[in-house]
Amino acid sequence: MQFTSEQRLDDGVLEREFTLGDIPGILWTPASAPTPLILLGHPGGLHKLYPRLVARARHSAAEGFAAAAIELPGSGDRPRSAAAEEARADLRRALEAGEPIDEIVDRLVLPLVEKAVPEWRAAIDALLSLPQIGGPVGYAGGVIAIGLRLAVVEPRISAAGLFAGSYVPRSMFDEARKVTIPLLVLLQWDDEWNDRQLTLDLFDAFGSKEKTLHANMGGHIGVPQFEGDDVNRFFTRHLK
Amino acid sequence: MQFTSEQRLDDGVLEREFTLGDIPGILWTPASAPTPLILLGHPGGLHKLYPRLVARARHSAAEGFAAAAIELPGSGDRPRSAAAEEARADLRRALEAGEPIDEIVDRLVLPLVEKAVPEWRAAIDALLSLPQIGGPVGYAGGVIAIGLRLAVVEPRISAAGLFAGSYVPRSMFDEARKVTIPLLVLLQWDDEWNDRQLTLDLFDAFGSKEKTLHANMGGHIGVPQFEGDDVNRFFTRHLK
Repeated sequence: MQFTSEQRLDDGVLEREFTLGDIPGILWTPASAPTPLILLGHPGGLHKLYPRLVARARHSAAEGFAAAAIELPGSGDRPRSAAAEEARADLRRALEAGEPIDEIVDRLVLPLVEKAVPEWRAAIDALLSLPQIGGPVGYAGGVIAIGLRLAVVEPRISAAGLFAGSYVPRSMFDEARKVTIPLLVLLQWDDEWNDRQLTLDLFDAFGSKEKTLHANMGGHIGVPQFEGDDVNRFFTRHLK
Repeated sequence: MQFTSEQRLDDGVLEREFTLGDIPGILWTPASAPTPLILLGHPGGLHKLYPRLVARARHSAAEGFAAAAIELPGSGDRPRSAAAEEARADLRRALEAGEPIDEIVDRLVLPLVEKAVPEWRAAIDALLSLPQIGGPVGYAGGVIAIGLRLAVVEPRISAAGLFAGSYVPRSMFDEARKVTIPLLVLLQWDDEWNDRQLTLDLFDAFGSKEKTLHANMGGHIGVPQFEGDDVNRFFTRHLK
């Protein structure tokens, strides 16, 4: 893990860009240390998403959490996947035509999960070796399928706040039953990039004894401000 | 409104029993005044429910809210309704036999709503005339059908935290579309006294632009402790 830049934000949060092999990432740490770590899940494209990611990171830092994001395979400056681009276009077409999407979602999401999860795990290795990061680790954000797989295979993930803003392959529902960590699932009731019933079924399938669903009105980008506070409180209950 | 007893609880909350005509009730006020008022919805039986009601009232008082409950028609020491008792028995039988319940729920809930809502409104009149109570008013708790009707007909109700722990007549769904105040709906995912899909459909039907659903694991009486804090924060956003 190589730090490539470093700046102190006006609220005292230290922002450092890094590379992990050929994967770019950003780490935000609050002044207090050692801290628990929150992995910021996102749909890919660190630069484009930076304003939203840094806002989430600063909000987490204010409660004493470090936060980190790494670029997803096929996104940002990383090599594109022709198969993923094709699947994404197929998904858009199928949704517009009202056609079945299960096979397309499998093609789009499963390879991404296969590639991204080992990278997130390598990032956890590297981040937990830093003196400022003490653990435990939470996963917060979108690409719920990645959070789901991480929750099953990575014992260092202690809690997850999952934003249900993307399709999860139905073929992963059996895996969802194996999740046992505390979960907070955020659902936008009329999310144009997600299926409400799919999320309700997935929430039902999760094996966790403590799981909470927060549903709010509005579309994909309309998550109310107060949910950020709820996510912080959720992690404070489970990571501190 | 006649106060019939008064005691100061150890946290400084003033608890006063009262009667409003022949309806018994309890009012809890924090030291700070004037305060917003939260009506504590409940399934009937003030004495039996007292431990839970006083816990909710103290929790509200700690955030500066007064709280009040009045006895429901047909409950506690008030005259029983033979029709309601019969409907309740019919509902139990129908649920056990897996038979349709819509007609029974209508018979059980609609007359209760018709009687209880004017009583709650009279209580609001009386309570808002006290110098300690400044308003605005929220409704928090069970018998969601009563909260729904109050939200539609009573303009002094500014926000409602509805516990979806009882059946709501499908015939009230059109009324739900007329609700416009902010709502927080609590759903226990495996509530033995409620129907999950009914609650999801009802949540969808509410006309409010700001509405949030919190679903948690467990049965009717398993609402997690932290939801009490969430309800307080919801009312702090909307009543202060």
